[in-house]
Amino acid sequence: MTKRNLETCFSPALFEAEKHVSSIVVIIDILRASSAICTAFANGAASIIPVADVDTAKEYKSKGYLVAAERDGFVLDFADFGNSPFNFTKEKVYGKTIVYSTTNGTGIIKLALSSYKTVIGSFLNIGSLTRWLINQDKDILLLCAGWKSKFNIEDTVCAGAMADILIRSHCYSTICDSTLAAIDLWSIASPDLHGYIEKAAQRTRLRDKNLDDCIEFCLSFDFTDKIPLMTNGALFAEF
Amino acid sequence: MTKRNLETCFSPALFEAEKHVSSIVVIIDILRASSAICTAFANGAASIIPVADVDTAKEYKSKGYLVAAERDGFVLDFADFGNSPFNFTKEKVYGKTIVYSTTNGTGIIKLALSSYKTVIGSFLNIGSLTRWLINQDKDILLLCAGWKSKFNIEDTVCAGAMADILIRSHCYSTICDSTLAAIDLWSIASPDLHGYIEKAAQRTRLRDKNLDDCIEFCLSFDFTDKIPLMTNGALFAEF
Repeated sequence: MTKRNLETCFSPALFEAEKHVSSIVVIIDILRASSAICTAFANGAASIIPVADVDTAKEYKSKGYLVAAERDGFVLDFADFGNSPFNFTKEKVYGKTIVYSTTNGTGIIKLALSSYKTVIGSFLNIGSLTRWLINQDKDILLLCAGWKSKFNIEDTVCAGAMADILIRSHCYSTICDSTLAAIDLWSIASPDLHGYIEKAAQRTRLRDKNLDDCIEFCLSFDFTDKIPLMTNGALFAEF
Repeated sequence: MTKRNLETCFSPALFEAEKHVSSIVVIIDILRASSAICTAFANGAASIIPVADVDTAKEYKSKGYLVAAERDGFVLDFADFGNSPFNFTKEKVYGKTIVYSTTNGTGIIKLALSSYKTVIGSFLNIGSLTRWLINQDKDILLLCAGWKSKFNIEDTVCAGAMADILIRSHCYSTICDSTLAAIDLWSIASPDLHGYIEKAAQRTRLRDKNLDDCIEFCLSFDFTDKIPLMTNGALFAEF
């Protein structure tokens, strides 16, 4: 079998949509959008509508939708709640459609809409997601959200963990320097993932705002089997 | 003494010029532009005029300048020679002004012109360059050329080696994830730098074109004390 191609992109500002129309794009924004989305589906959310701008989110709210919206970590005043995975409890989200807008993550989902498929990845669904990816037999791009277009450590390390699993499956090969670097950073981080993420700038940002209570949770493996998949403008759980 | 700020940028596409007007920007494009420029000054070149486009290089040639110009590794037909450091011998360059245009490196030098100072860095001048940087007492941005706007391993590892020296000097601190990741990749690469660079995509590109004879040289430390510094549109050696 010909091995499929695996690539990694460290920032939406480096993403070349036209090169990935036949690929599955995995959006990684672990602190906190992609972890929150995985948690919502684990707790039974029916679907999530990602919206990039605040006005659109507000419009949905006026129509009666449940709205999760934040900027720079803070809940927007009209929203029902913000971006912490702990907000997306079964009591709040079971059976519901959630409109979701964050600083980074939701804009990036829109960026990747021309790809073959777009899914949401985090440590919380890494086992199930990588098994599903291997079965799809398509080229893959791991797209890190970064922070305001900059490289960040936590998404890179998560991409490295995914890439490590995919390469070990022998179904993928890579000549992509970003993928090789991400795997190496994962090899440094994996013996003490919490300790490694301590030095990430986003870790400090969240601590400064007292928003860091969810970090340990966001770094836990396989909390859910759900794979959030973009379908006609909204995310639905693949399993 | 307040520590100066150290940042790293993995691609010219991520470079935010307006944030670095007070910083020294170090351009790193080790395979092969920044290594070739350091070699030229080591061999007595008087100055190097970096030009981004082919037409400008051609115009200089018609005026009688010595022109080094390549695209994707190949020497342009009107040029005197290309991009290998081995071209910039004492016989060819001593006392001369060289007009220089490459796929990546020279365009990036132009990008950084609004910074406080722009210098060229490589393994070939790493010791002298980092000592000079420490004496300047300014914020620093290590700007990796990458490959056609993509992240690359070899420039990142060189940035990591520089950052490691600068942080150990206790004159710099960083909260930049790119810098921390570059230092970690350098820690993996440093025990066997040649072996590590073997996996870089550019290593393969150069081998495929039989242009890889200079790689071992480009990975050698402290071949020269010269620091190529942009001054009024051209590079001159600082020492």
